[in-house]
Amino acid sequence: MPTSLQKWSAEFLGTFWLVFGGCGSAVLAAAFPQLGIGFLGVSLAFGLAVLTAAYALGPISGGHFNPAVSLGLVIGGRFKASELPGYVAAQVLGATVAAGLLYLVATGKPGADIGGFATNGYGEHSPGGYGLVAALVTEVVLTAIFLIVILGATSRRAAEGAGGLAIGLCLALIHLVSIPVTNTSVNPARSTGPALFGPAHALSELWVFWAAPMAGALLGAALYRVLFGED
Amino acid sequence: MPTSLQKWSAEFLGTFWLVFGGCGSAVLAAAFPQLGIGFLGVSLAFGLAVLTAAYALGPISGGHFNPAVSLGLVIGGRFKASELPGYVAAQVLGATVAAGLLYLVATGKPGADIGGFATNGYGEHSPGGYGLVAALVTEVVLTAIFLIVILGATSRRAAEGAGGLAIGLCLALIHLVSIPVTNTSVNPARSTGPALFGPAHALSELWVFWAAPMAGALLGAALYRVLFGED
Amino acid sequence: MPTSLQKWSAEFLGTFWLVFGGCGSAVLAAAFPQLGIGFLGVSLAFGLAVLTAAYALGPISGGHFNPAVSLGLVIGGRFKASELPGYVAAQVLGATVAAGLLYLVATGKPGADIGGFATNGYGEHSPGGYGLVAALVTEVVLTAIFLIVILGATSRRAAEGAGGLAIGLCLALIHLVSIPVTNTSVNPARSTGPALFGPAHALSELWVFWAAPMAGALLGAALYRVLFGED
Amino acid sequence: MPTSLQKWSAEFLGTFWLVFGGCGSAVLAAAFPQLGIGFLGVSLAFGLAVLTAAYALGPISGGHFNPAVSLGLVIGGRFKASELPGYVAAQVLGATVAAGLLYLVATGKPGADIGGFATNGYGEHSPGGYGLVAALVTEVVLTAIFLIVILGATSRRAAEGAGGLAIGLCLALIHLVSIPVTNTSVNPARSTGPALFGPAHALSELWVFWAAPMAGALLGAALYRVLFGED
Repeated sequence: MPTSLQKWSAEFLGTFWLVFGGCGSAVLAAAFPQLGIGFLGVSLAFGLAVLTAAYALGPISGGHFNPAVSLGLVIGGRFKASELPGYVAAQVLGATVAAGLLYLVATGKPGADIGGFATNGYGEHSPGGYGLVAALVTEVVLTAIFLIVILGATSRRAAEGAGGLAIGLCLALIHLVSIPVTNTSVNPARSTGPALFGPAHALSELWVFWAAPMAGALLGAALYRVLFGED
Repeated sequence: MPTSLQKWSAEFLGTFWLVFGGCGSAVLAAAFPQLGIGFLGVSLAFGLAVLTAAYALGPISGGHFNPAVSLGLVIGGRFKASELPGYVAAQVLGATVAAGLLYLVATGKPGADIGGFATNGYGEHSPGGYGLVAALVTEVVLTAIFLIVILGATSRRAAEGAGGLAIGLCLALIHLVSIPVTNTSVNPARSTGPALFGPAHALSELWVFWAAPMAGALLGAALYRVLFGED
Repeated sequence: MPTSLQKWSAEFLGTFWLVFGGCGSAVLAAAFPQLGIGFLGVSLAFGLAVLTAAYALGPISGGHFNPAVSLGLVIGGRFKASELPGYVAAQVLGATVAAGLLYLVATGKPGADIGGFATNGYGEHSPGGYGLVAALVTEVVLTAIFLIVILGATSRRAAEGAGGLAIGLCLALIHLVSIPVTNTSVNPARSTGPALFGPAHALSELWVFWAAPMAGALLGAALYRVLFGED
Repeated sequence: MPTSLQKWSAEFLGTFWLVFGGCGSAVLAAAFPQLGIGFLGVSLAFGLAVLTAAYALGPISGGHFNPAVSLGLVIGGRFKASELPGYVAAQVLGATVAAGLLYLVATGKPGADIGGFATNGYGEHSPGGYGLVAALVTEVVLTAIFLIVILGATSRRAAEGAGGLAIGLCLALIHLVSIPVTNTSVNPARSTGPALFGPAHALSELWVFWAAPMAGALLGAALYRVLFGED
C-alpha cells in the first residue's frame, strides 16, 4: 500500500507533467511558423500527458491529476472524501511549479512573448470569442463525459489495462472539441498554474474553471453511479 | 447482466459523445484560422469518441453507438433482432441531444456561423463536390469494412481487450478517406442529429445516410459470417 | 484451423483495406484545400489500415497483407513457402480491386483529376525528386526494419496482443519518413494496384517496388533469424 | 537469456530505427511544401520509433536505445552498471550508421540541401532561438520525466504490456513540447549521430546534449527510487 506521501508525490508529478507537457506544447510549439503543431498537437499533448502519467503513476495514486476527477471519484464511490484535500493540494502545487518552470523556458529567448500563456478564458479571452454560456456548457458537458469515461473504463467490467489509454485519449478528444471555446480546462489545477504567471485577466476568470469542471464532474459521476452502480 | 434501461443509457451516452465530440470538433475546431485541426483532427476525434466510449460503456451495451453497427451485429449473429428498435431509438436520441447542445455552443458567440454544421451530403453538399454514385460506393464500402473489422476484432479468436482500439481507429481511418466525399457518415444516427439543426438540404439528403450505411453493414456482416463463421 | 479459402479471403480483404484506406486517403484527402490531411494523415491511414486489419483478420491468416511480409516470414521460419503463391495472389487481387473502386470514387465528380493516383516512383516521379539510389536504399532499409519489427513483436518473447499495434504503427512511421522519397511502398501489392489505374510511368517503374521491398524483407528477416533465432 | 551480442544488436537496431525514423522524418518530410508533417509528425515519428522498437526488441535488451535511459536504469536499480559501456557503444554506433544512411538518402536528389540535418542546438541553432538556460532546463526536466515514466510504466505495479505504449508516447510528447527549444534530444546517441554528418556547429554544442540528458536521467531516476522504491 502506498503511503500518503507517495500518493501526493505521484499526484504532484502527474499534474506537473500535464501542465509542463500540455500547456508547454501550447505555449512553445502550437503557433511555431510553418511547422507548428496547432490545436491538434496540443490536444494530443494533453492526452499523452495523462496517458503516460496514468500508466507510470496511476498504480501509486490512482492517477487523478485533476481536482475535478478526484471530486468525481468521491461522488462515484471510488475515492475517500477524506483524501480529497491532500490530493487537490498536491495537484495545484504540481501545476504551479510546472507553470513556473515553463515561464522560465518560454521567456528564455530574446524578444520572448508568452501571449496568453495557455490560460483559460471566455468572451474576449476565448480563442474563438465564445461567451460565458458557451464556455459553461462546454466545460460542464465535457467534464461530465470525462468522468463517465473514467468511471466506466476503470470499472470491474472493463478491459484490464486499457484505462490509461481510454482516459488519456478522452482528454485529447475533449481538447479537439473545446480549445476554440475556452482553451479547454476540465481541470481546475491545470487552469490555476498558468493563471498565476499569465496575463492578469486569467486570474479574474479563474472561478469559471473551478466551478464548471467541478459541477460537470459531480454531474457525470452522479449520473454514472445512478445508472450503472458503484463498481 | 445489465438491464435494458442500462443498455439504452449506454447507447444514448456513447452516441451523444460521438456526435458532441466528432461533429463538435468539426464545427468548432476544424477550420480555426492557422491552428485548426483540419480533416485529420476531425478523423481522430470521431475515432477517439468511439474508442473511449467502447472501453467505458461497451461492457454495458456492447458499444454500438450506430444503427448500422447494431443491424450488422444482428446479421452477424452477435445481437438479437428484438433489441434493435430500442438501441436505434437510444442512438438517434443521443445524437439529437448532442447536436442540440452543440448548436447552443456553436451559436454562443457574436457573429456565429454554423456553416454546414457537420451534416453529410453529396453533389454540391459534398465537401469535395463528389456525386451520388461516389457517395453511395464510399459509404457502402466503408461501412462494410467497418463491420468486418468489428466482427473480426471482437471474435473469440481475437486478442482480448484490443476491440475498442481497433474499432475506434477503424472509424478514424474511415474518416481520413471519406470526409472529402460525404463528410463521412457510416452511421445514420450521427447523420440525423446534425441534420435536424443544420442547413435544410441536410434533411432532404438524409435518406442516403440511412440507406447506404445500412446496406454496407448488411453486406459486410453477411460476408464475414459466410466466410468466417459466427464466433 | 482456418481453411485456405478463409486465409486467402482474409489476405484479400486486409490488402483491399490497406489500399482503399491508405491510397484512398492520399488520393482523396491529402491535398484538400486548407483542411487536407497531408503526409501525416496519409501515414496514419496506412498504419491504421494494417493495425485494424491485423486485429480483425490476423487471427485468420496471420495478417500479412503484403508479399514482402509473406516472403520475410518464410525466411524467418514463421510461414510455409508452399503457402506463398496463394497469399501473394490474394494480396495483389485485393489491392487491384481496391484501386479499381478507388478510381471509381475519385473520378466521381465534375473535373476530377486523379494526379499520381498514389503510385510509387523515383526521379521525376518521386514526390520530392529523389533519385533511384535514394529510392532503393530507402525501400530496402525500411522494409528490413519492418520485418524486424514484425518478427520481434510477434515472437514468443513479446507482449501478447501488442503485435497489431506495433506493426501498424511501424508502417505509419515508415510513411512519415519516406513518402517524400518514393511515395512509400515497402509492399509490392500496394504498389501494383494503383499502378494499373494511374499514370503510365507507374507501371514502368513498378519493378523497383517489387525488387526493393522483397530484398529488404529478405535482409531484415535473415538478420533477425541469425541474430535472435526463430521463435 | 539473451547473450551480450544479442543485447548489443538489439540496442544497435533500436537506436538505428530511432534516428533513421525520427531524424529521417525531420530531414525528409517535416518541411515538405504544403503537405509536410511539421513538428507534430516528427514528434509522432520519434515516439513510434521507440514504441515499435520497444515491443520488437525490448524483450531482448530491455529496449533502452538511449544512453541517458541506460544510466537512469542503473540509478533506478534496474540495470547493471557493468553493462553500461557495451549498451552505450551499441547505441552510439546504431545512431551513427543511421545518420550516415540518412545522409545518403537526403543528398540523393538534385540540389539537395540537408539544412540543420536534425541536429540539436541552442541560441542561434535553437529552432525558436531559445538560449542555453532554456535549453538546459528543458532537456533536464524532460529527461527526468522520461525516466520517471519509464521506471513507473515498467514497475511490477504497472499494467502488463503497456510499457512500450507509455514510453513511446512519452517521447512523442517530449518532442511536442521541446522541438522549438533544442530540436529535442533527451538522448545523447540521437544527438551524436546527426552531429557527425550535419553542420559544424552541431559538434561544438554536442556536450550540452550529453550533459543535460544524463543529468536529467540521474535526477529523475533518483527521485523515483527515493519516492517509490526499486520495484
